Amino acid sequence: MIKRFTLGSPIDTDAVVGRLPVTDISEFPLALETGEKTVISFDLRDGEMIFGLGEAIRGINKRGWIYESWCSDETNHTEDKKALYGAHNFIIIENRFALFVDFAGKIEWDLGYESPSRAKITLDGSDADIYYITGKAPRDMAIRFRGLIGKSYIPPRWAFGYQQSCWGYAKESDFVAVRDRHRENKLPLDAIYMDIDYMDSFKDFTVNSERFPDFQAFVDDMKASNIHLVPIIDAGVKREKGYSVYDEGSERGYFCTDKDGEEFQCGVWPGIVGLPDFLNPDAREWFGSKYDALLDYGIDGFWNDMNEPALFYSKQGLESAVKKLQAIDPDTMDIWGFFEMRNVLFGMQNSYSDYCSIYHDLGGRRVCHKDVHNIYGAFMTRAAAEYFEKKYGKEKVLMFSRASYIGTHRYSGIWFGDNFSWWSHILLNLKLLPSANMCGYLYCGADLGGFNNNVTPDLLLRWLALGVFTPLMRNHRALGTRAQEAYSFENVSDFADVLAVRYRLLPYLYEAFRRASDEDDMLFRPLAFDYPDDKIARETEDQLMLSDECMIAPVYEQNRLGRTVYLPEDMTLLRLSGERVDRTELKKGVHYIDVALNEVPLFLKKGKKITLAEPALNTEELDWETLEIIEG
Amino acid sequence: MIKRFTLGSPIDTDAVVGRLPVTDISEFPLALETGEKTVISFDLRDGEMIFGLGEAIRGINKRGWIYESWCSDETNHTEDKKALYGAHNFIIIENRFALFVDFAGKIEWDLGYESPSRAKITLDGSDADIYYITGKAPRDMAIRFRGLIGKSYIPPRWAFGYQQSCWGYAKESDFVAVRDRHRENKLPLDAIYMDIDYMDSFKDFTVNSERFPDFQAFVDDMKASNIHLVPIIDAGVKREKGYSVYDEGSERGYFCTDKDGEEFQCGVWPGIVGLPDFLNPDAREWFGSKYDALLDYGIDGFWNDMNEPALFYSKQGLESAVKKLQAIDPDTMDIWGFFEMRNVLFGMQNSYSDYCSIYHDLGGRRVCHKDVHNIYGAFMTRAAAEYFEKKYGKEKVLMFSRASYIGTHRYSGIWFGDNFSWWSHILLNLKLLPSANMCGYLYCGADLGGFNNNVTPDLLLRWLALGVFTPLMRNHRALGTRAQEAYSFENVSDFADVLAVRYRLLPYLYEAFRRASDEDDMLFRPLAFDYPDDKIARETEDQLMLSDECMIAPVYEQNRLGRTVYLPEDMTLLRLSGERVDRTELKKGVHYIDVALNEVPLFLKKGKKITLAEPALNTEELDWETLEIIEG
Repeated sequence: MIKRFTLGSPIDTDAVVGRLPVTDISEFPLALETGEKTVISFDLRDGEMIFGLGEAIRGINKRGWIYESWCSDETNHTEDKKALYGAHNFIIIENRFALFVDFAGKIEWDLGYESPSRAKITLDGSDADIYYITGKAPRDMAIRFRGLIGKSYIPPRWAFGYQQSCWGYAKESDFVAVRDRHRENKLPLDAIYMDIDYMDSFKDFTVNSERFPDFQAFVDDMKASNIHLVPIIDAGVKREKGYSVYDEGSERGYFCTDKDGEEFQCGVWPGIVGLPDFLNPDAREWFGSKYDALLDYGIDGFWNDMNEPALFYSKQGLESAVKKLQAIDPDTMDIWGFFEMRNVLFGMQNSYSDYCSIYHDLGGRRVCHKDVHNIYGAFMTRAAAEYFEKKYGKEKVLMFSRASYIGTHRYSGIWFGDNFSWWSHILLNLKLLPSANMCGYLYCGADLGGFNNNVTPDLLLRWLALGVFTPLMRNHRALGTRAQEAYSFENVSDFADVLAVRYRLLPYLYEAFRRASDEDDMLFRPLAFDYPDDKIARETEDQLMLSDECMIAPVYEQNRLGRTVYLPEDMTLLRLSGERVDRTELKKGVHYIDVALNEVPLFLKKGKKITLAEPALNTEELDWETLEIIEG
Repeated sequence: MIKRFTLGSPIDTDAVVGRLPVTDISEFPLALETGEKTVISFDLRDGEMIFGLGEAIRGINKRGWIYESWCSDETNHTEDKKALYGAHNFIIIENRFALFVDFAGKIEWDLGYESPSRAKITLDGSDADIYYITGKAPRDMAIRFRGLIGKSYIPPRWAFGYQQSCWGYAKESDFVAVRDRHRENKLPLDAIYMDIDYMDSFKDFTVNSERFPDFQAFVDDMKASNIHLVPIIDAGVKREKGYSVYDEGSERGYFCTDKDGEEFQCGVWPGIVGLPDFLNPDAREWFGSKYDALLDYGIDGFWNDMNEPALFYSKQGLESAVKKLQAIDPDTMDIWGFFEMRNVLFGMQNSYSDYCSIYHDLGGRRVCHKDVHNIYGAFMTRAAAEYFEKKYGKEKVLMFSRASYIGTHRYSGIWFGDNFSWWSHILLNLKLLPSANMCGYLYCGADLGGFNNNVTPDLLLRWLALGVFTPLMRNHRALGTRAQEAYSFENVSDFADVLAVRYRLLPYLYEAFRRASDEDDMLFRPLAFDYPDDKIARETEDQLMLSDECMIAPVYEQNRLGRTVYLPEDMTLLRLSGERVDRTELKKGVHYIDVALNEVPLFLKKGKKITLAEPALNTEELDWETLEIIEG
């Protein structure tokens, strides 16, 4: 069951659908301290696992580290970090209870960090809804929570195809080449992403007319070859007189303000921007309607970026930094002066004090950004989604967001942000999946091959062999990195073999996805959910259960020709590659399995079945009906 | 056999002992391009492994990535990095051949990066000795190479005890507390490190007299309780008139110069310093003798740091950066201007152009630093070692160095630099061991618990359970990080249990170490060396063979109660904890084994034996003779 407890007068975060009656706070079953901060604490039992927190670093079992809910433009996804882009305030304390802390400010989650046997959750504020959820097992509690927060977003079916992205595709011919080279090499592809360079000076809802002299013809040509174009939209709107989006927003007072009530100015890609006040319903409706500028060309997919919001600097921060830097005398500066000089610059980006200097208009009440930070990006994506639904109904537009809160899962998917071409990030990708699923995010995935730094073909192949199973299957890389399109390497047929498996599995995966959405269930589960009494399964975090039929166990280390895998019950190992399916029956226990670079291993449970389609080069050409049945 | 090929007129790097006759370059068996750069290239065979490169990131098998030999003050040991602190130009191409490239400038090692089937080694210069080594197997080639470069350094026996370090122990009472709290908690300890704060204004060979009012009494008191103090020595010498080390060095012309022949000025901890020209034998002898300032107190251990050399900035770089920063107009700056401003500061540290602006005096010939960069730190440590040996003979003084080249292994050990409190860095620590061993570094280890960022007790225990086997067993952390001394946590008895195992194993480990040094052998070997035909053993990189008796397989993931381990033959699993030894017989194959947080797993081969001593609180009190024999 779920009990709702209310502290103070929380704002409406849009996380929950419907309204539960409030239980009196005197019945709150955990230690609670109130005041300027709110602290919830409880003992942890020996060996008890903790799940949840959605998009966060470290393990599936979150115990033993300290996390933060604070939507962060964090490009270094290393183990010491506390927060990534999303704020997903849901945890499950194995078989005892789950908590959803509906609070839009900063939260610190000490899950056995200060003391291994104590959890302490600290909210930076005094107004919150806290949902206490019980159930017979973690999966049960996750489903109950999902019932509370509403059905997960389902994108159009083509969004389950393979997609290619690169910050650096700038002009029409770049996109055409990506399409053509996939087709020439018999590599499937359903979408190509347009990163920031398609815009005119990074202005939202514009298209650079030099780079795209006939954008309509370009979109039509792509669509005719079954390629969807997916442009990026950033949160910040360039402050430029004569740019209609800025002029309109400014005239109507739709931008966030500073302490004096003037428009808050910060620097991101376009230079100085205004931040639309997505917490204002009128501003939301207005911003949503601006997508028409692209929808009207036939564009049917978007990714919303920089909406934590990311601040490279604020105008006031820059001025103060430059003043400090200009006061330096290199002849008298000691080493501490040098460090101070560096910190001035390091400290400018995404500065907490800047977040404290931004104000929102909440129905006439001025609210400091720090108290609503974690719903800012969520409400940007809500703005777009509400407009799309009004215009087209559901399942017509692909959208995913970088920043998110609980609730965003009803409007869009998420991607896991700016990872690296590191082997360890394959494993991080895997671990993020069940955690995101618990929090409602079914349509999600990481930048396959890694966004930052340089890829190698083996890394990309191994990562794609995981990506075959993730609903969002997008290869994305940063400007200046080594080419990582599937046709970039000598062994292009290996890539064709792996990508073919995605399309063969698509009817099964799509059906499993819809089922998870319909039933408020997870697509990916930790083995601990399904085999809670199996000691080895409990702590296995490099394999996942996929829907009710399968287990996946990708290879994620360089120079390996296989991997060790744990089977919690007898299963059939399928090695999928191109049109080939090899079967191996395996008994419960620890096994070493060979996995070639062009193979995708999949474990099918006994008595379960999946279907395979014929390979296809895009979802439109895929025969979704003629399916081969594979039994475990 | 070993063949030496000489290109041009290489400088004497001190890497090789004795001189091999030169084989005519026309007999060089690999593709060779000469010119401003020298390029060696050859095809790689399917499945062929590559070993070597000493201190480098990624796997034990180096194939599939691109590395650099360029001694680097690199604090972020992530997978995308190409170089760490040492330059160890030795690789083994599995069963075919090995190469030692004796060259003190930059080398790029493309080991199957551009093309998976091609290796390409590019030297930034035209003067080098290249040694081509053949042998029947990788271990054989490693031993042959070690014969060429001379016997590995052996430290005094106490240096095999457990050691504690922290950047932040500043005054006498800090050190006394660390000793006393170990003793009170029955935690063994042999040494405490003195990081930069013990000095007067970071001046080499000084002791801060406010913090240590009676340094002699302090050293004596520590020694009486069997605690050795190990101070740090930095490469740069503070430019300060009246500071005798600087004045002497300056008068005698012992500092590196700039292009105009003036002393090169750069900023590190003391502010602006001069860099002693360790390539000048007179300067070396002089610098070595300066250690007397500490040796005379009875100090018998040192760590040489910042000797890549690390440059926070150069004087000229700072002046030019400040000029650029002062020209900024925040009102007109666009986003590219902002990035440029950041890059000005990011680019100042360890800047390649600064390294190109430093000059050495090589017997009257001016040599640009970039051409000898990789032996700079090596020659600092050589300076100290030659002085110690002249003064005391061998095995009297502990020393290890951050920067190193081949040859340094005869003078000192190395530590693996500024890692993080990341679980993945336990595994990196393990992978570094055999690679360092191949290159002569037997006395080595990582900062246990991680230098940067915050530790958790489980991380530290698991890391110590690996550290139990590493010759250098030092817990080290940075200023401002969470306390990670073994007494800092609730479960202090778990720490006592793990540390006891170190001392129980010491007589065995010390003997195995000496044997490896005597026989030019490795202490740690990849499983691939011992079981080259075993497919699973070949690619197992999270276990190591230890000497001829054992295999180790530490747990390196959070929230795990055990791990999967591969046994390439039947072995006895010993679970060591405090005085307890549990035996389990295991058959060849893949197993899951339980490992409690206070246990150290060790696998003993059948027919082999090891010895165990009684636990002790330091190496002095350890009974090295009364030993229990454990047979596999």
